[in-house]
Amino acid sequence: MTKLVEFAMVREAAGRILGKVARTPLLRMSQLDKFFRGAEVYVKPESFQPIGSFKLRGATNKILDLTAGGGKLNGVITVSSGNHAQGVAYAAANAGLKATVVMPEIASPLKADKTRALGAEVVIYGQNNNESDVKALEIMEQEGLSFVHAYNDPLIIAGQGTAGMEIMEDEPDMDAVVCPVGGGGLISGVALAVKSMSPRALMYGVEPATVPRFAESRKAGELLTLYPDKLTIADGTRTMTAKELNYNMIAAYVDQLVDVDDDLIREALALATFEARLLVEPSSAMTFAAALSGKVPVGPGMKICFLLSGGNISFDALKELIG
Amino acid sequence: MTKLVEFAMVREAAGRILGKVARTPLLRMSQLDKFFRGAEVYVKPESFQPIGSFKLRGATNKILDLTAGGGKLNGVITVSSGNHAQGVAYAAANAGLKATVVMPEIASPLKADKTRALGAEVVIYGQNNNESDVKALEIMEQEGLSFVHAYNDPLIIAGQGTAGMEIMEDEPDMDAVVCPVGGGGLISGVALAVKSMSPRALMYGVEPATVPRFAESRKAGELLTLYPDKLTIADGTRTMTAKELNYNMIAAYVDQLVDVDDDLIREALALATFEARLLVEPSSAMTFAAALSGKVPVGPGMKICFLLSGGNISFDALKELIG
Repeated sequence: MTKLVEFAMVREAAGRILGKVARTPLLRMSQLDKFFRGAEVYVKPESFQPIGSFKLRGATNKILDLTAGGGKLNGVITVSSGNHAQGVAYAAANAGLKATVVMPEIASPLKADKTRALGAEVVIYGQNNNESDVKALEIMEQEGLSFVHAYNDPLIIAGQGTAGMEIMEDEPDMDAVVCPVGGGGLISGVALAVKSMSPRALMYGVEPATVPRFAESRKAGELLTLYPDKLTIADGTRTMTAKELNYNMIAAYVDQLVDVDDDLIREALALATFEARLLVEPSSAMTFAAALSGKVPVGPGMKICFLLSGGNISFDALKELIG
Repeated sequence: MTKLVEFAMVREAAGRILGKVARTPLLRMSQLDKFFRGAEVYVKPESFQPIGSFKLRGATNKILDLTAGGGKLNGVITVSSGNHAQGVAYAAANAGLKATVVMPEIASPLKADKTRALGAEVVIYGQNNNESDVKALEIMEQEGLSFVHAYNDPLIIAGQGTAGMEIMEDEPDMDAVVCPVGGGGLISGVALAVKSMSPRALMYGVEPATVPRFAESRKAGELLTLYPDKLTIADGTRTMTAKELNYNMIAAYVDQLVDVDDDLIREALALATFEARLLVEPSSAMTFAAALSGKVPVGPGMKICFLLSGGNISFDALKELIG
């Protein structure tokens, strides 16, 4: 079994990324209480990060660790068609490093442009992430670059965990934290922090109903890859394979995994937009959806935090989903 | 000259409305700094109030004052086609009072429905606010109701001022506060609080270029009513007449009035939506617009707060403005 990440690494990450990443606020949103049976509702809006998502935390922690030794680095490389690409590009530019991002051909031109605008070199290659991975490894070896994985890395997990640490610092009595699950980097770190700081707090992970790879892996007792019939609208959580490190972190620190379907995510996205008045992406809305569905139980006197992972959505996409 | 409202009244209001109105956060939004020449950007999101706007502050303060004596009240009445209607409806319901809201025929059915949903009786009457006023006074006398004016009332001004007080409590070193100007109730209270707590802080008011009634009144040295060629998209700031109390408060406490046109408001609304990732109405975006235009000077090392007055906008309207 791979070694679990320890909470000390999250604390270290918090010190390392201080001032280079936004310390997002914990927002008490009383206007949402009535939608959740009178619970005391909080949100952690990672949509307020400079690149609009939590990905900046892990990428910054990883890249600062890589450069900490003072050794010469040729640059970093990653594979991503989404928020991680921008996280790596931003963090690398901040550290004065060259970043290369390999994106599959299906990646949106808008995301490629945004990543380039942050100073990264974007290589479009492959029909899917697996083919992009192969290309990335080839470039990595040729150019002597360091790889920054999106979730399967203790330093990435520790960086994302700082979001959970901040939640518990700001409200030590939080009763429950709800977090979306894609590759599992965010929830691995957040659950570690939350449970380390308050063992009684309940930690929920939300997967898309189309591809609940961690819940299915847990049932099967082995790491699975799921092939969904259709893609969820929560584009940040389409990862098909449960990796061992994330699986083990979830097994150790997450009380319950639940799943939500696209109809409910759409309803939750409307709630986020018109009631919370926050612009978030569907992956963030999954957390609200889980409580709306009743799968995450809520009620009066309960302090619950919904972790809003990001706010990168185009107006056209938002229109199509809830307009 | 009418007597100016004193800061002690804002302090009293803060105590009175505590727990009945959201204490909105002061958000540090470093992701916006680059759009304002490196200034340290803060926002005060009144869009997070239960009814989605600051109007709840003044209405709650006024209605609690009316009921404080323990005397019997038959209910309250107001004229409004916008956010004030919902503020009065919500505050009255909270105080166990009946609310009647007279709306002109041009009021949006959506806003009438929302006001009704908060428990108020809505009377649709008149071609404009003046005709609605006459009707409201008639009902007031018939039914023995108390009038809750939207801005021309010391208790309303003191209530809105609590937003300014909270800004300066949360960041005593704030260098400048930018506030939209409609009838002038919000800026009267906010400027009073800001200047009382930090005389060196600069206070800016932003009017729509279509109807800059306070700036024109200031130039003319008398209270003017302006008849705009067209209505601004900032529907919360269409008031045509400068009232004496608000005029005097602005003269005493606001350093500078600036105006912005609809094109700039649209640009600022896109910034609020896609960069701040907040859903706000055009009146709120006017504050960003004023700094984008250069009329409110900004630069590195300056702490500036944009007061976002509300977030009541339909998706269709948002689409039309920035989609």
